[in-house]
Amino acid sequence: MPFDSLDHIRAFCRDLPTGDAPAAEAAVRRQQHLTKPPGSLGRLEELAVWLSRWQRHGRPRLDRVTIAVFAGNHGVAARGVSAYPPAVTAQMVANFTRGGAAINQIARLAGAELVVVPIELDRPTRDFTAAAAMDTDEYLGAVDAGSRAVPHDCDLLVVGEMGIANTTAAAALCAALLGGGAARWTGRGTGVDDHGLARKRAAIDKALNFHRGILGDPLAVAAALGGRELAAIAGAVLAARRRGVPVLLDGFVATSAVLPLARLDAAALDHCRAGHVSAEQGHRDLLRELHLEPLLDLGMRLGEASGAGVAVALLRAALACHQGMATFAEAGVSGAEE
Amino acid sequence: MPFDSLDHIRAFCRDLPTGDAPAAEAAVRRQQHLTKPPGSLGRLEELAVWLSRWQRHGRPRLDRVTIAVFAGNHGVAARGVSAYPPAVTAQMVANFTRGGAAINQIARLAGAELVVVPIELDRPTRDFTAAAAMDTDEYLGAVDAGSRAVPHDCDLLVVGEMGIANTTAAAALCAALLGGGAARWTGRGTGVDDHGLARKRAAIDKALNFHRGILGDPLAVAAALGGRELAAIAGAVLAARRRGVPVLLDGFVATSAVLPLARLDAAALDHCRAGHVSAEQGHRDLLRELHLEPLLDLGMRLGEASGAGVAVALLRAALACHQGMATFAEAGVSGAEE
Repeated sequence: MPFDSLDHIRAFCRDLPTGDAPAAEAAVRRQQHLTKPPGSLGRLEELAVWLSRWQRHGRPRLDRVTIAVFAGNHGVAARGVSAYPPAVTAQMVANFTRGGAAINQIARLAGAELVVVPIELDRPTRDFTAAAAMDTDEYLGAVDAGSRAVPHDCDLLVVGEMGIANTTAAAALCAALLGGGAARWTGRGTGVDDHGLARKRAAIDKALNFHRGILGDPLAVAAALGGRELAAIAGAVLAARRRGVPVLLDGFVATSAVLPLARLDAAALDHCRAGHVSAEQGHRDLLRELHLEPLLDLGMRLGEASGAGVAVALLRAALACHQGMATFAEAGVSGAEE
Repeated sequence: MPFDSLDHIRAFCRDLPTGDAPAAEAAVRRQQHLTKPPGSLGRLEELAVWLSRWQRHGRPRLDRVTIAVFAGNHGVAARGVSAYPPAVTAQMVANFTRGGAAINQIARLAGAELVVVPIELDRPTRDFTAAAAMDTDEYLGAVDAGSRAVPHDCDLLVVGEMGIANTTAAAALCAALLGGGAARWTGRGTGVDDHGLARKRAAIDKALNFHRGILGDPLAVAAALGGRELAAIAGAVLAARRRGVPVLLDGFVATSAVLPLARLDAAALDHCRAGHVSAEQGHRDLLRELHLEPLLDLGMRLGEASGAGVAVALLRAALACHQGMATFAEAGVSGAEE
């Protein structure tokens, strides 16, 4: 069943595939016998177990890691909410293609393939202060583009985005689904000044008022206040869940993109980890709402999957220890004294 | 001038080599032109500048990364302060040699050579509750072993340790040089139970009382309350400073090992970064005292350079972005609007 109607997405989120408990338990048992005090690798142990649970195997792998960066343009950009002109979205997509962006360097280091998916850049969403950003068909088209970007034999999916003005869409989604108004969620994005920040907040509060009738419907909110690249991230995360692929989320925008799924079912993000917490205002608060503990906290706020891409190295370390360490018995190392 | 007398070490720390400000400034300028909003790579930008400063080149490199793990045994282990018997120190050194430990897997992923330096494992330090752990010659011998472990053409040094009972020595050093008594600094190490923790605290408070006459002399404290692997770490960090090699510190024990240097001169650790903050009680507090902001916070508490070894990936990401990203001009990407 493809994610080709809102009802299909809702039905999938009512009956989510679960992880493999025996595989996770096998990973926990193996960790207990490796040559280290129990628990002393901290989150690296938890990550090895998490990979096992979702890959459905006590000895998981990271042979094929895919970093998917989705790009979209936003009608609300016309309201002066970004420090950069909308043309930068396409320019940065070209930069990704030529290998000049941060994510190109980070993906190479991570041993990951980089998939860049620009979605109708010449057709920005509508200005959501006075209309739905996307109608249902447009929204589902973007979900489908994201869903199709997940390779069938992928061991880990990393999702990120590029889109001038998309922290405005992200903040609007958070405010619509979690409350607190624009003030709670609106930050400086790429670096707007005080005037830009005020315009951003005003646009979001206007949109919240305009769309007040649909705020109880997470998918309607995603279409009305989100963006194509955000919808694609949700589609990719759904497809990953169906195929047993663990996911690393990037920053504020990528996390806000999956918030509607979590509002449909709190377990919808169990196969996801937060790669990092962004310096963008709102991300730490959003992660707390989603019970996601970020792997990195490096003051990054670039998007384009850069933070989560760096975090792939932590998963590789977790896996290398899980697979490569000797057990106490193999190494002839004495255990703890009773 | 080798570090062959306490006076030589003190003289070196009174007249420390500084980093290269023009190289750091060149790195800052380059960062401003790369295709990203200014500052949006967060700490990755700071790390690129730090590498430039200490490698004395605006385009630093990480071609040769050395992870040095020093091992030593401790007389105070006889007081029941660890969950593991002292024989485990040598057993784990053998495990390092055979490639079965966490640090073997982590070093391989980090693209680093692993240098393991056991220091007189058959000659534990004296029980410091009733004698100096080392006399001056023993201390200087261990400092020298550490100094000689730093390769001449090394681009980055990562320091870590292995030594049953050495969190007791580390806590004693912190209590002696920073105050607060055993209660402030003593944690469960590899995982002692409440009785072990009480024995650990009692041993440290006894030692602080026994050595109360020398607590104002950081190097005398390092000899009396430290250990051979801790002295070796201090020697390696001094040698790295002399040769312009940036250093990543591992956890609580490795950081406590360089605390005496910071007490000689607050700038003595400017060429060091904290790879991670350990779950061991006291490490977060110690890093705060040293104004070191850890790169990772993953609940690890294994030692053997494992946390800092994982953090090497962050330096590689910082360097790859610094070297490989296109500038706005090269990529034809529009800058921020005025």
